[in-house]
Amino acid sequence: MAAPRSKVLVLNAGSSSLKFKVFQWLGAGAGAGASAAAASAAASGVPELQPVAAGLCERIGDPAGGAVMRASAGPAGWRKGERIEQPMPDHGAALRLVASFLAGSLGGAGGGSPFQQDVLAVGHRVVHGGGIAHSVLIDDAARDSLEEVSHLAPLHNPPSLHCIDAARRLFPDAPHVACFDTTFHKTMPPDAYTYALPADLCREHSIRKYGFHGISYAYLTREAARMVGKPPEETNLIICHLGAGSSMCAVQGGRSVDTSMGFTPLEGLVMGSRCGDIDPAIVPFLMKMRGLGADEVDTLMNRKSGFLGMAGSIDVRNIEDCALAGDEACQLALAVFVRRVRKYLGAYLVHLGGRLDALVFSAGIGENGSMLRDMICADLAWAGIAGLDRAANDATIRGKAGEVQAAGSRAKVLVVPTDEQLEIALEALQVVQAAVD
Amino acid sequence: MAAPRSKVLVLNAGSSSLKFKVFQWLGAGAGAGASAAAASAAASGVPELQPVAAGLCERIGDPAGGAVMRASAGPAGWRKGERIEQPMPDHGAALRLVASFLAGSLGGAGGGSPFQQDVLAVGHRVVHGGGIAHSVLIDDAARDSLEEVSHLAPLHNPPSLHCIDAARRLFPDAPHVACFDTTFHKTMPPDAYTYALPADLCREHSIRKYGFHGISYAYLTREAARMVGKPPEETNLIICHLGAGSSMCAVQGGRSVDTSMGFTPLEGLVMGSRCGDIDPAIVPFLMKMRGLGADEVDTLMNRKSGFLGMAGSIDVRNIEDCALAGDEACQLALAVFVRRVRKYLGAYLVHLGGRLDALVFSAGIGENGSMLRDMICADLAWAGIAGLDRAANDATIRGKAGEVQAAGSRAKVLVVPTDEQLEIALEALQVVQAAVD
Repeated sequence: MAAPRSKVLVLNAGSSSLKFKVFQWLGAGAGAGASAAAASAAASGVPELQPVAAGLCERIGDPAGGAVMRASAGPAGWRKGERIEQPMPDHGAALRLVASFLAGSLGGAGGGSPFQQDVLAVGHRVVHGGGIAHSVLIDDAARDSLEEVSHLAPLHNPPSLHCIDAARRLFPDAPHVACFDTTFHKTMPPDAYTYALPADLCREHSIRKYGFHGISYAYLTREAARMVGKPPEETNLIICHLGAGSSMCAVQGGRSVDTSMGFTPLEGLVMGSRCGDIDPAIVPFLMKMRGLGADEVDTLMNRKSGFLGMAGSIDVRNIEDCALAGDEACQLALAVFVRRVRKYLGAYLVHLGGRLDALVFSAGIGENGSMLRDMICADLAWAGIAGLDRAANDATIRGKAGEVQAAGSRAKVLVVPTDEQLEIALEALQVVQAAVD
Repeated sequence: MAAPRSKVLVLNAGSSSLKFKVFQWLGAGAGAGASAAAASAAASGVPELQPVAAGLCERIGDPAGGAVMRASAGPAGWRKGERIEQPMPDHGAALRLVASFLAGSLGGAGGGSPFQQDVLAVGHRVVHGGGIAHSVLIDDAARDSLEEVSHLAPLHNPPSLHCIDAARRLFPDAPHVACFDTTFHKTMPPDAYTYALPADLCREHSIRKYGFHGISYAYLTREAARMVGKPPEETNLIICHLGAGSSMCAVQGGRSVDTSMGFTPLEGLVMGSRCGDIDPAIVPFLMKMRGLGADEVDTLMNRKSGFLGMAGSIDVRNIEDCALAGDEACQLALAVFVRRVRKYLGAYLVHLGGRLDALVFSAGIGENGSMLRDMICADLAWAGIAGLDRAANDATIRGKAGEVQAAGSRAKVLVVPTDEQLEIALEALQVVQAAVD
């Protein structure tokens, strides 16, 4: 009898990048001598997954070349791993390089069978699920459904689809699962996801608020509930996922009831190069004044705006430094960013009827931007958030999790590093197990 | 010696309409036997103005004809006045009809001189002031400045400009004053009015949040401060001006610190036929999917969306009736409207640091929509708004002013009928007096 498969491979394709991570499932050998960790994991109802390899391919398909993979097996993390420069004309080529690295680095289960034979599930991150409500096992029909919603996210979904096609050829015996950034927001009520546009037009073109970063929010909701000591279904949160792309989510009883991103990841907060909310009449105005086409104005709003457009850099740490040194454009950009976050914070407090267990910060800026966290949490004592504990806030950066609110705060303020790859692996495992049961 | 001029004429031009109102200034004869009212007004520092005529011209310039003026002199109001059908090819023709009506209906001051000789000031409402900060006396230079900002509000400003030109010809001896809906919002801080678009582009095309309904907000701020018993400069308000066009304003110490309309009157709340906030990426998406040009998508968002787009009617009373009768599209449209108002309410509570003296409702829906007021104020006790007193809320409609909050509410909830024409008349009078001083 072949040893049970034990690896979950997670693939996260961007427009010119491919992140991957491999988890060892400790429950794999449960029938034939489970580890203590797996037993403990089984007891808590959560399958235990341990990262064993990770990496990143960049500049895939770049006509200027320079494609590079950085990858490592073991606990050091890919940033300290090996660096391989090799042409990667498309995501298929990148994935073949990844598979070759993993075959060489990770032994097979039990009898040393090749890595391909040890893959229990492949989890794929797909940004836009359109009307698809939950993670799905990818058969040919599901693959076609994914293609049908691709036009809703023309920048984000096609790379995922290319990656899925390539991965199904490379790992034909493993089940593949698509996990969507939109799934977590399927619980939003109609008045939250409906735009005040002509109803027939919205129906015909599937125009509604979808919301994104849902894989992160699913993970963070579980973690934050654990940190406030409540079951997720009794936990109310406002989560700030603040990174290169930023959004916020109002979580009521563990479920998304509103989020700042919308039909696309453009709506809402100020981001690295995205404008977030603007007067929609600015769009036709700019097109006429500048002679821009629809794609050009879309590019302007998605790639040339936000921090980049206001202050000339997408790097918030750089903008913080310049702001502290007196640069007025950088000071203004931070103030606009903070004000927008606080605007949604107030809106979501109202949605939650003021009943907030925790305000949660995560992702690059949320996990490291202690100055911005402090600005966001100012003057909110009336709403049950009594500001931050300076020492705790300053110390809780670089991957640390913890409470940072000031003493006496009714609501907690949490910093929680997100782990989308782990969430995808858990989700893929659950979908595969449900399909077997 | 000629009798002092005593009439203030207010003109409010829409794209195919012209509203007018005439006020008698009770301070006019102050030197030669002031009335008790004028003396009392002078004591309170506010010039006393009493309406003496009002009217409305509709379907101006309509190729299908049907232009009609309804007007009355005296206290009955124009709705009960006379009705004159006559061709009005443009605002100049409409204004000549108005002047003729007023000359016939209103006696001149003192010795019965014609109406034209009795006009102390003509106040013009102009929606968009662009970079102009305050009400201005219209000389040729100011008139050209108005023309320069017209492209920022191509639907709203040109009719005002036509009307100003015609009125300056008809009343050449009277001072004309332009009052802007943007003026009240000039106190917004930069982080409130800056969009996260490329800074150089915004500078070049004057793209920023301007905000509108400012004439109404100026009036309502003074009235609401009086009703809460504080000087305006110590009063914090959230004002909901809810009509065919709707917006909200956060007033801190009597000054606007944020408002929901933006570069144009499209941004923000759900309105009769305007969508308010949407994901800006929907604009280029729709243009591509439907083959629309910039003007067409602008028209779609401004004229075919909002209540009309969601529920087939711009008449909120009609939508309320259908919603109560079980129509799901109407129920959803109201829920989307209310949720949007509450979203801004939460945001503005944060801007005000929770220090709110009163939530103020005004304009058609705000003054009459008791059911919507109730929905908007639900579940806000945590923020100091303990809901509404049902009897007071139900009774405070149709032009009544009053408090409608439930007993024990920390913040008041006020219904205040707005009076933009009076505000324009007061403003025009002040500008004229300042020019004389």
